[in-house]
Amino acid sequence: MHTKGEPYSMAKSGIQYVFRLTIRREEIAFGDLLRQVEQQGGDVIGLDLVRSDERVTVRDLTVVLPSADLLEPLVHLFNQLPGVHVDNVSDRTFLTHLGGKIEVTPRVQVKTREDLSHVYTPGVARVVEAIAQDPMKAFQLTIKRNTVAIVTDGSAILGLGNLGAQAALPVMEGKAVLFKTLAGVDAFPICLDTQDVEAIIETVVRIAPSFGGINLEDIAAPRCFEIERRLQERLSIPVFHDDQHGTAVVILAALKNAAKIVKKPWESLRVVIAGVGAAGTATTELLLASGIQDIVGVDRDGALTRDRNYESHPAWARYAAITNPHNRAGSLKQVLAGADVFIGLSAGNLLQAEELKIMARDPIVFAMANPTPEVDPDAAWQYARIVATGRSDYPNQVNNVLCFPGLFRGVLDCRASQITMEMKLAAADALAQVVQPDELAPDYIIPGVFNRRVAGAVAEAVIRAANQSGVARRTPPSVSALMP
Amino acid sequence: MHTKGEPYSMAKSGIQYVFRLTIRREEIAFGDLLRQVEQQGGDVIGLDLVRSDERVTVRDLTVVLPSADLLEPLVHLFNQLPGVHVDNVSDRTFLTHLGGKIEVTPRVQVKTREDLSHVYTPGVARVVEAIAQDPMKAFQLTIKRNTVAIVTDGSAILGLGNLGAQAALPVMEGKAVLFKTLAGVDAFPICLDTQDVEAIIETVVRIAPSFGGINLEDIAAPRCFEIERRLQERLSIPVFHDDQHGTAVVILAALKNAAKIVKKPWESLRVVIAGVGAAGTATTELLLASGIQDIVGVDRDGALTRDRNYESHPAWARYAAITNPHNRAGSLKQVLAGADVFIGLSAGNLLQAEELKIMARDPIVFAMANPTPEVDPDAAWQYARIVATGRSDYPNQVNNVLCFPGLFRGVLDCRASQITMEMKLAAADALAQVVQPDELAPDYIIPGVFNRRVAGAVAEAVIRAANQSGVARRTPPSVSALMP
Repeated sequence: MHTKGEPYSMAKSGIQYVFRLTIRREEIAFGDLLRQVEQQGGDVIGLDLVRSDERVTVRDLTVVLPSADLLEPLVHLFNQLPGVHVDNVSDRTFLTHLGGKIEVTPRVQVKTREDLSHVYTPGVARVVEAIAQDPMKAFQLTIKRNTVAIVTDGSAILGLGNLGAQAALPVMEGKAVLFKTLAGVDAFPICLDTQDVEAIIETVVRIAPSFGGINLEDIAAPRCFEIERRLQERLSIPVFHDDQHGTAVVILAALKNAAKIVKKPWESLRVVIAGVGAAGTATTELLLASGIQDIVGVDRDGALTRDRNYESHPAWARYAAITNPHNRAGSLKQVLAGADVFIGLSAGNLLQAEELKIMARDPIVFAMANPTPEVDPDAAWQYARIVATGRSDYPNQVNNVLCFPGLFRGVLDCRASQITMEMKLAAADALAQVVQPDELAPDYIIPGVFNRRVAGAVAEAVIRAANQSGVARRTPPSVSALMP
Repeated sequence: MHTKGEPYSMAKSGIQYVFRLTIRREEIAFGDLLRQVEQQGGDVIGLDLVRSDERVTVRDLTVVLPSADLLEPLVHLFNQLPGVHVDNVSDRTFLTHLGGKIEVTPRVQVKTREDLSHVYTPGVARVVEAIAQDPMKAFQLTIKRNTVAIVTDGSAILGLGNLGAQAALPVMEGKAVLFKTLAGVDAFPICLDTQDVEAIIETVVRIAPSFGGINLEDIAAPRCFEIERRLQERLSIPVFHDDQHGTAVVILAALKNAAKIVKKPWESLRVVIAGVGAAGTATTELLLASGIQDIVGVDRDGALTRDRNYESHPAWARYAAITNPHNRAGSLKQVLAGADVFIGLSAGNLLQAEELKIMARDPIVFAMANPTPEVDPDAAWQYARIVATGRSDYPNQVNNVLCFPGLFRGVLDCRASQITMEMKLAAADALAQVVQPDELAPDYIIPGVFNRRVAGAVAEAVIRAANQSGVARRTPPSVSALMP
């Protein structure tokens, strides 16, 4: 069992900064700069020449400082050195984002007139006519084969809230990087300058011809439910709201492995879910589909029961109708008594770790709120058998990146028209099984985000399930043809 | 002067095909295959091994045949050879398009957890917040800096007509390839599954946050005029309908050089334009802005004069109001009498070459209809001093690819909010001047599409003009930082 302060926390801390310095050669020895950094408890980890002449040299000095508070003093110290001027300070995150994180690159060369005649006019006209006669040919002859739109309205960006379409773009670009890096999927960010349900639906339907799938992202509940459902009705390509189903798939995978460790039968697990937004609702539906029967959802007013009035929240009325078979009422702490599993998809510091004592033997605790989990993970390990979080600095990180790349690799390879419940269940199964029986342990119930077997395993399972669901429109010769 | 049959026509003809052949080793000598190709008048230009075992070898045989009619007989001949089976035949154009012509690739690596923390969560949150506070930061920190949407409704694809959004995708991909290859611009195809003016405008406004510019493409007249105008009013990034203004810029450039050769003063040129659609209207406006005064537009019913009734074509009423100062009426041939310049932007075979005799001395003839020009170019060279077409197999090809890559390179580099008339005039000037005075000749009035000086020259001129127009929001340190 893991206890507070052990090395699961990230050992290396500190923030990287890049100082662009103009240095007059004759006035300063470079060692003077290094000493200033060391006096602030920092390390110099890189030094690059920008330009140089006889008198002046401009250099980028990359420094790790233990805390952001030390930046200002260090700039001050540098500027006080004779012959030194700090032109600019950037931190590595901002430098990484400069100019955007993705680009659109040709897969074909155009160096000669003959190349041009194949890639563009006049040759392209025959390809246009072939698709006009048979639109399904677009899946062979265009980017539709391998391209996903990452669509957001910026209404629920990470844990930051409603910051709008323009501010959402760096997140969607980051997601596109992960799609390509982990599963060879081409993904392009579409940030919508509207938060109106009808406008979002109409816009996505209209831009769909370029894409083989739609990944909805960071769209607030409850509108995300209606948008996804109606888009899937209108389009013949898969529509997948990752904040809902990606989270649900990874939680289901982790819970499957957790249940094996505590040796409890799957169907009779008693689960309490705190937070019935996008992720909580989708997780509940997927767990129900997997065979778990006793799930109680809890919002700020306590357990959702069929007796409560949900006039202003029709989604919650539906939720109450399909959950809580024993109609348990009361606060989170009251319904947690005797539960096997706690899944937090809500907000930080909802519970004290001691309160987990009221759960059944070998509690399984998934505290997913970010950056502050529902219960302090270090403390929770003292009362629970298994603790998972959304954070990278604790064991058992439940991260959507374990699902979406492989899932879309699969649906694109088999040209699925939609993503069925069976495909999500299959993805979760495959993900759980990446952890081999002899590796399974309380602090290893889910693979790490860089585990190279994950995307391929998920894709293969998704293709098999798509065939069984009757939504596949192609039998791919090999899952991994486009895998990196 | 150029005469019929001279080597301006493309010497090399023929269509490339790739035959995938399964060959049983013991039964056939490879030379037998080559002989069959030669007997059909074809050439083998490539041979690639696909796979091989002791008995069987599978090979891709690339062949050039003089005509498509010879394909069937050759397949038949191959299949008759003992031990040979033709598995599949593809031609090179279709092979070039397989799987699409562009991809979305990361500009940053994600190999370690630390990479992930900068590219995605948690680091990206600070970038999101920076843009939420100052949306202009998106031009530094996201793909908005260098990304253009290529937007079409598929209503006027090449010369093929209204084939819809899905069929338009290969053309837009080809254009994206040219954007990146020639000017380092990231361009992404947005094919809209609607042809309603309001729906197109609303959709483009909503998806604009990801982009630094909008290239409208292959949208039919007259709706293209309203769409472009209203989008430019709604958006603070440039909106440019290439079929209109790209064509206009390249024609103006070519005409400037042609006028130098015939030594006629610019302002007094008499110009007749056949075809007052998207390209004809934009070309007229740009020529007027450049100082030419006497332009007569001609549609199927003859010259557009202020006397005619244009109730069903309000765009033509406007056209008639700003052109034809001497109110010349009559057929194309009638108004062509005494004209210095004929510009065809209409349909093939409108004129017999002999009819050009009625023009003023040293006729300048731009016959741009594709693939069949308004007048046969070979014949036209006998009567005109200078002939230009839209085709690659005659001298003086007027091709939009000479304008759009460099133009968007320029507007992205200086973060222009729109593309003014001054910027288009500057682009045309720069393009014309790529042809050096000592190179200028009747058969060289415009640079070739692979001339490497074009994009940079156009971009520089556009930036200078954007500054003068007051629409630039940044002074780039160097035009060519992103040039390939």
